[in-house]
Amino acid sequence: MGKFKIGVGLWNVNFAADRFLASGYRPIKSLKEQLKMVSEIEGAESVDMHSSDFEGVTPKEVATMVQDYGLTIYSVNPNVFGDPVFKYGAFTNTDENVRRKAIDLTKKTIDMAREVEAPVVSLWPGQDGYDYYFQNDYYFQWESTISALKEICDYAPDSKICYEYKPKEPRMYSFINNAGKALLLVKEVGAENLGMTLDYGHALFANENAADTLCLMNRAGKLFHIHHNDAYGKWDDDLIVGSVNIWSNLEFFWYLKQTDYDGYITLDMFPFREDPFEACSLAVRMIQTFEDIVDSLDSAAIKQYQQSNDAAGVLELLRKKVLLRQ
Amino acid sequence: MGKFKIGVGLWNVNFAADRFLASGYRPIKSLKEQLKMVSEIEGAESVDMHSSDFEGVTPKEVATMVQDYGLTIYSVNPNVFGDPVFKYGAFTNTDENVRRKAIDLTKKTIDMAREVEAPVVSLWPGQDGYDYYFQNDYYFQWESTISALKEICDYAPDSKICYEYKPKEPRMYSFINNAGKALLLVKEVGAENLGMTLDYGHALFANENAADTLCLMNRAGKLFHIHHNDAYGKWDDDLIVGSVNIWSNLEFFWYLKQTDYDGYITLDMFPFREDPFEACSLAVRMIQTFEDIVDSLDSAAIKQYQQSNDAAGVLELLRKKVLLRQ
Amino acid sequence: MGKFKIGVGLWNVNFAADRFLASGYRPIKSLKEQLKMVSEIEGAESVDMHSSDFEGVTPKEVATMVQDYGLTIYSVNPNVFGDPVFKYGAFTNTDENVRRKAIDLTKKTIDMAREVEAPVVSLWPGQDGYDYYFQNDYYFQWESTISALKEICDYAPDSKICYEYKPKEPRMYSFINNAGKALLLVKEVGAENLGMTLDYGHALFANENAADTLCLMNRAGKLFHIHHNDAYGKWDDDLIVGSVNIWSNLEFFWYLKQTDYDGYITLDMFPFREDPFEACSLAVRMIQTFEDIVDSLDSAAIKQYQQSNDAAGVLELLRKKVLLRQ
Amino acid sequence: MGKFKIGVGLWNVNFAADRFLASGYRPIKSLKEQLKMVSEIEGAESVDMHSSDFEGVTPKEVATMVQDYGLTIYSVNPNVFGDPVFKYGAFTNTDENVRRKAIDLTKKTIDMAREVEAPVVSLWPGQDGYDYYFQNDYYFQWESTISALKEICDYAPDSKICYEYKPKEPRMYSFINNAGKALLLVKEVGAENLGMTLDYGHALFANENAADTLCLMNRAGKLFHIHHNDAYGKWDDDLIVGSVNIWSNLEFFWYLKQTDYDGYITLDMFPFREDPFEACSLAVRMIQTFEDIVDSLDSAAIKQYQQSNDAAGVLELLRKKVLLRQ
Repeated sequence: MGKFKIGVGLWNVNFAADRFLASGYRPIKSLKEQLKMVSEIEGAESVDMHSSDFEGVTPKEVATMVQDYGLTIYSVNPNVFGDPVFKYGAFTNTDENVRRKAIDLTKKTIDMAREVEAPVVSLWPGQDGYDYYFQNDYYFQWESTISALKEICDYAPDSKICYEYKPKEPRMYSFINNAGKALLLVKEVGAENLGMTLDYGHALFANENAADTLCLMNRAGKLFHIHHNDAYGKWDDDLIVGSVNIWSNLEFFWYLKQTDYDGYITLDMFPFREDPFEACSLAVRMIQTFEDIVDSLDSAAIKQYQQSNDAAGVLELLRKKVLLRQ
Repeated sequence: MGKFKIGVGLWNVNFAADRFLASGYRPIKSLKEQLKMVSEIEGAESVDMHSSDFEGVTPKEVATMVQDYGLTIYSVNPNVFGDPVFKYGAFTNTDENVRRKAIDLTKKTIDMAREVEAPVVSLWPGQDGYDYYFQNDYYFQWESTISALKEICDYAPDSKICYEYKPKEPRMYSFINNAGKALLLVKEVGAENLGMTLDYGHALFANENAADTLCLMNRAGKLFHIHHNDAYGKWDDDLIVGSVNIWSNLEFFWYLKQTDYDGYITLDMFPFREDPFEACSLAVRMIQTFEDIVDSLDSAAIKQYQQSNDAAGVLELLRKKVLLRQ
Repeated sequence: MGKFKIGVGLWNVNFAADRFLASGYRPIKSLKEQLKMVSEIEGAESVDMHSSDFEGVTPKEVATMVQDYGLTIYSVNPNVFGDPVFKYGAFTNTDENVRRKAIDLTKKTIDMAREVEAPVVSLWPGQDGYDYYFQNDYYFQWESTISALKEICDYAPDSKICYEYKPKEPRMYSFINNAGKALLLVKEVGAENLGMTLDYGHALFANENAADTLCLMNRAGKLFHIHHNDAYGKWDDDLIVGSVNIWSNLEFFWYLKQTDYDGYITLDMFPFREDPFEACSLAVRMIQTFEDIVDSLDSAAIKQYQQSNDAAGVLELLRKKVLLRQ
Repeated sequence: MGKFKIGVGLWNVNFAADRFLASGYRPIKSLKEQLKMVSEIEGAESVDMHSSDFEGVTPKEVATMVQDYGLTIYSVNPNVFGDPVFKYGAFTNTDENVRRKAIDLTKKTIDMAREVEAPVVSLWPGQDGYDYYFQNDYYFQWESTISALKEICDYAPDSKICYEYKPKEPRMYSFINNAGKALLLVKEVGAENLGMTLDYGHALFANENAADTLCLMNRAGKLFHIHHNDAYGKWDDDLIVGSVNIWSNLEFFWYLKQTDYDGYITLDMFPFREDPFEACSLAVRMIQTFEDIVDSLDSAAIKQYQQSNDAAGVLELLRKKVLLRQ
C-alpha cells in the first residue's frame, strides 16, 4: 500500500464520561466544534462519525460542514449501543422489535453514509453479548446476527459494511469476542461487501498479536477498516497511539504496508483526561513516525530471519535500526 | 462472628451509566426512592452512601428519612472521584489546591457521617493513579497519600476510616492496586482508626484469592468493611453475588465466620441492565444461602484436610455437602 | 445425548514435571501401571493416549493390554510437541523436513489408532506458534497448517481428526489460540473428518464462556472430542474437574446434553501434587454429579428466562435447585 | 547510581525443559561449560547460581572456577523448589520436617555464598502457595514464613537475604504474589538484612508498573537485587530483555538510575528455543542501550511534565528522543 491515510473518530475529541463520572470529563462540543478541532490536527484527513452525530442536522448539512473544514467522512457507524432500548442487545436481542429497530437504524445509517459519500459503515454491536451464565441462547445469537447482517448487506451492495469485534464491555462477554470468531461470522454471512474493522486495542485485549490478526483478515480479503489506539492488553484502554507498544506497532504497520489496504487508519481513542487536540495530534505523529521507521527497515533481512525463526536476529536488527538509528 | 448483617450501597439501586451510554440505563431516582427500594429488600438493614447523596438535603433530614425506612447508615463515602476537578487524582493530585479540596471533602464527609451516626467512612480514591508511563512521580503519590491520610485520621479518631484498593479503573493503574500495597499504606500511616474496605470483586480482579486477602486484613486487625458482589476476575464486574463463584464465596465466608468482624457485608454491585430491586434481593438471599452452607460445613474436617494439603479430600467434602446435600 | 461416557487421558496418571522440577513430581509409571490405575477409577471407561506411549510395544500389544483392563482407547494423539526437533513448530515449521516429520508422525499415529480401534486422533500442535514480534510469517503458518491438515485428513477418511486450540504454552502465542480461529481453520480445510477437540480449560484461558464455545462447535457439526478439567481462566491450569467453577460447568453440561455428541468426556488434568488416582476418581464423580444436577434442571423454565434475558430469574432457579436442593 | 553492572543467572544458559518436553530443549551443560559461556558474553560480569549447582563440587572449587573465567558470583539461591519433597511448600509446608529442611538448606546456601563471596542470597520459595480453594490455612502460611525468615536472617547478618515474589507458577497462587505483599512481609520480619529481589517480568505478571514497584522497594530501602527479562504481562514469560517493552523498560531504568542501587542487574530469562549465548548477549546489549538512552533523556523536562500530569508532553519527548533521535 502507499502512504498511510489517517483519520479521526469524532468521539475522540468530544465529551467523555465513564460510570463514575457520568456527567463527563469535559463539556459536550457541537458538531461544528468537533469538526473544527479535527481539521486543525495536522495529518488528519477524514472523520468517522456515529449515526447519533446527525441528530438535528441533515446529511447534506453535515457533508457541507465537513467539506468546509477540508475533511472527508470515511465511515458512519450506527449507534446501536447508546440507547437503553438496546441494553440486552441489538442484532441479538430476543425481542423482535428491538432487533428490527437495530436493523432499521443500520439501514438508515447506510443511507446517511451514502449521502455524505462515506464509503464505509462500521458496525460495533456493543450490547450484543451476555453477562451471566445461562442468560442466553448462544445458537440464537448466531442465527439472529447472521440474518440481520444478510439483510443489511443486501441493502447496501455499494457500501463496505465492517463488523467490529471486541472481547468485553459493555457486556461481560461480547458475542463476537475475537478476530477468528468475527471472520467466521463474516464468512458464514458470505456477502462480498461485508468485512471487518480491526481495532488494534481490541486485538490486544483479545490476547491477539495484532499483526497476526491483520494477516488473518487480509488473507481473507476482509480487512476493510482500521481503528488505532494503544492499550496494555487487559482492557480496551483506548490510549494515545504509541504510548504503550513500540515493537508491536512496528510489526503491525510493517505487515500493513505489505497489503493492498487503501482505507484510513482512524484514531479510536478515549482521551478522558488529556486535551483531545494534543492527544490526537500526537497520535497522528506517532503513526507517521512508525511509518517512517517501517519504511526504513530491511524487509528482506527480516524475512530471512523469519525463515530461520531467528528471534534474536530480528530483535538485534530492531535494536540497531530503531534504538540506535544505525 | 455472629449472624451476617447485610447492607446495600445506595448506588446499587440508582442510575447506572457507562462510557457508551452516559445518559444512563435507567432514570435517576430521588434519595427517598432509593431508600424506599432498599427498605423493601428483605434482609437488608443498612445503606452505604456517598457524600454527593447529601446534596440539597441536610444530614439531619437524611438521618430522619433513613430511620423512617427502618434502615441505618453504615458508611458515608467521600465522592472524590465523580468531579472532573479530581481527574488527575484526589489525594495524589500534584495540584496542592485539589489535594486540599479532596481532604476537606473527606473531613466534611466525616462530619456528615457523624451526624447520621454512620460508624464508617470508606475512602475509594478512584482517580489516584496514572495512565501512562513516565506520567507520574511514584514517590510523590506515596508521600501525598500518607500525609493526607494522617490528617484525615487525626481529624476523626471516632470514625473508622477505610481505604479501598482496586487494580484499575477509572485510571489504567490505580495507585493502590492490591491488598498487600493497601495494608502497607495503612501500616505506614499508623493510625488506629485507619483500616480497609475489602471489595470481593476488587480482590478477584487483583488476582487474589479473596479468602487469603480476608485473612491478610484480619490478621492485621484492619478488616473494617466489606463490599460484596461477584466477578469473572478480569475486571471490576460488580455482578450479582453468587452469580459466578461458588467455592470461592464459600471459602471467603467460611474464613469470615471465624473472625470477629462485626460490621456489615454491603452490596456493591452495578446492575446496569437488571432490575436493581430483584438483583439486590437475590444477592441478599445468596449471602444468606452461603452463610447457611458455611454453618453446615464440618470445619474440623476441613482443617484436618488443610493440615495434610489434601485438596481432593476437601473438594470431595464440598461436593457431598453442597452439591449432593449429604 | 444419552448418559455421559467418561475417559481418562493416560498422562493424567503418569509422571508430571514442570520447568522448575524437570525431574518430576513423581516417578514414571509403565504403560501397564497407568492402564491398571485408570481401570480402577470407577466410572472411567476409556483412555486417550499419545503416540509416544507406544514406544517399545506394538499396537496389538497395547490393544490387548487395554482390553485386559476392561478399557477402550478413544483417541491416540500424535506427540508432535515433546521432541526438541519440533521446538519451532510442527505443521508450521519453516523447515520442510520437520513439517514432513510431523505429518508422517501423525499418519503413523492414525495407523496406530486404527490398529487399536481408537475412533479419534486428537491433534494438539503445541509448538505451532511464536514467541516474539516479527519472528514469524503469519501467512505461512496458515498455508502450511492447511496443507498439512488436508494431507492428513485425506489419509484417514475413517478417522475423526480433531484440532485442539489453546491460547498459549509452550509458545507465547499458539498459532490457533481460540475457538473461532480453530473453526475457521477447520472450515477452510473443508474435510468432513476434521473437527475439534474442545478443552474446557483452554476455552476459559481463551476468555471464552465454555458453553458458548460448545454451541459454536456443535452448530458447525465439529464437536468431535471433549477434554475436561478446571481452571481459574488465566492459564491452562488443568485442575481437578469442579474444583473452581460450578455454574460454568453446569451450563456447559446443560448445553452438551442438548447435543447429539456421543463421544467421551476425557479427563485432561495435570495433578502434579495430588495422588492421580484420587484426583481422577473425584473428577469422574464430579462429572457424574454435574450430570445429575443438569438432568434435574427445569430446562423449559431456563429457556423462558433466556427469552426474557432474565439473569436474576435463572440464577434464583440455580440457587434453589443446586444450593438449596428445593 | 553509576554505570549498570550486569550479571547472568547460570540457569539462562543451561538446560531448559517444560511440562510438555521434560527431557529438555537442549542438553544439560557442565558447570564449567555454563561458566565459560557466561564469561564470553560481552558485558556480563557476574553470575547468580542455585545451591543445586554446587552438587559434586566444593564451594572453594566453584570460587576458583568462577574466578578463572573472570567472573564473580553475586547471588547464590537455595533451590527450595526443585525437589518433590517441597511440592506442598518450603517455608509454608505444613510438615515441620520439610519446613526445617527448607530452612536448613537456606542456611547451608548462606554458608556456600559466604565461601564464594557472594553478597546476596535470593530466596524464591516457588512452591509456597496453594492450588485449590480451602486447601490451605492462610494464617499458617504467614506465621511459618515469618518465623522461617527471622531464623534465616538471624543466621546471616552479613548476607543480603532477598525475598522474590511472583504471582503464580508452579502453584496456582504463590503465597507472596505481588510487591506490596512482599514488602509487607519483609517489614513484618523486620530484619535489616532482609530485602527484595525485584524481577521485572514478575512485576508485569502481577499487573504492576515495574517502575512503580521499583520506587516502592527503593523508598523502603529494600531494593536488594534485580532480575531482568521481558514479558507480555500475562505470565512469567522470561523473554529476552527489550523484546516486548520499550517505554516500560526505559521508565524502569530511568527511575533506577536515580536510586543508590549498587548491585547487579541479573538476567533471569528462559531462552528455551534460542541459543542462550545469543539471547544473553543481546539482552546485555539491550540493557546497555536502554542505559544510554536513559542517560540522554532530559530528566528535568520529564519531571516538569510529571508535575502537570502531561502524558502527551512526556510521550512527545520520548518520541523525539528515542524514535527520531532528535
